[in-house]
Amino acid sequence: MSAPTTTDRPRLPWDPPDHFEKRIPDGDNRERLVCGRCEFIHYQNPKIVAGAVCTWRDKILLAKRAIEPRKGFWTVPAGYMELGETTEQAAQREAREEACAEIEILVSADVAAGPESEAVALVDWTDIPWDQLAFPTVVWALAHFHESREKADFSTYSNPTGDLSRMWPPRKPAGV
Amino acid sequence: MSAPTTTDRPRLPWDPPDHFEKRIPDGDNRERLVCGRCEFIHYQNPKIVAGAVCTWRDKILLAKRAIEPRKGFWTVPAGYMELGETTEQAAQREAREEACAEIEILVSADVAAGPESEAVALVDWTDIPWDQLAFPTVVWALAHFHESREKADFSTYSNPTGDLSRMWPPRKPAGV
Repeated sequence: MSAPTTTDRPRLPWDPPDHFEKRIPDGDNRERLVCGRCEFIHYQNPKIVAGAVCTWRDKILLAKRAIEPRKGFWTVPAGYMELGETTEQAAQREAREEACAEIEILVSADVAAGPESEAVALVDWTDIPWDQLAFPTVVWALAHFHESREKADFSTYSNPTGDLSRMWPPRKPAGV
Repeated sequence: MSAPTTTDRPRLPWDPPDHFEKRIPDGDNRERLVCGRCEFIHYQNPKIVAGAVCTWRDKILLAKRAIEPRKGFWTVPAGYMELGETTEQAAQREAREEACAEIEILVSADVAAGPESEAVALVDWTDIPWDQLAFPTVVWALAHFHESREKADFSTYSNPTGDLSRMWPPRKPAGV
């Protein structure tokens, strides 16, 4: 995900403290963040964000973020998978936590802002606030949903490759 | 992955030190591991292991692990994705690190043990040492490869769900 760097944004709970230093641990071949006090190695690897484009009739469920990062911007319910979950369970939990939505094959219209959201809305495709979306991943998820909406059968989509900064800030993609 | 618990195995570099304690941080809704000295929160979320079933002619590339966990058992080249990699790049890097193999559409026969492997081998399907495979994920990857080997088109496979301890220790799955 093309997230802003630490200097661009408020400190987040998962930012390591200043007494972590970059060093190549024994037996490794790349720099890791190592605690300068106890030598604990803070491995940083890609994490899985699970989410869902939830629809009710023709409308798409969006939630306005009440917390950093990207407080005040809109997103589809999504978040870091927890240990022991399937991706489906994680997407269901995030929809419950962020939009008080119980999702199955179709979401019900009974939704509300959860503690991490300022507002939720069911919006038509043409009303999506592209410039107000929280992350490029939200743009991709919505575009992929739109592209495969009428298809019975389609491949898994991957993130774009290359320099992802070209996709920041979020905006309406061409051709949707 | 149905890994052994901490008590079953040697200490690993990514095990948190004993002065981390389980606590629910402010604004969270589940227990996390928190450093008792500096309050750093060690979030534990699923990580992505990228790997490849590499073939040369009809043979499959296996590597015998030289490091914990599961030292001495066999695996397909695979490991944790690093930041900034695609899954394909991660699988290529692991094949290079663990088996000195340059993989593209087909692996070349010029392979050797990397620093994390005791040995590598190109084995026929019927010679796979099922009871000596390092992880259940290796069993799944090989079974999925076998199932889709003749297919031009197939869906992404997911991990099995439910109690994964039924798959430990690794063994030959039914029907392959």
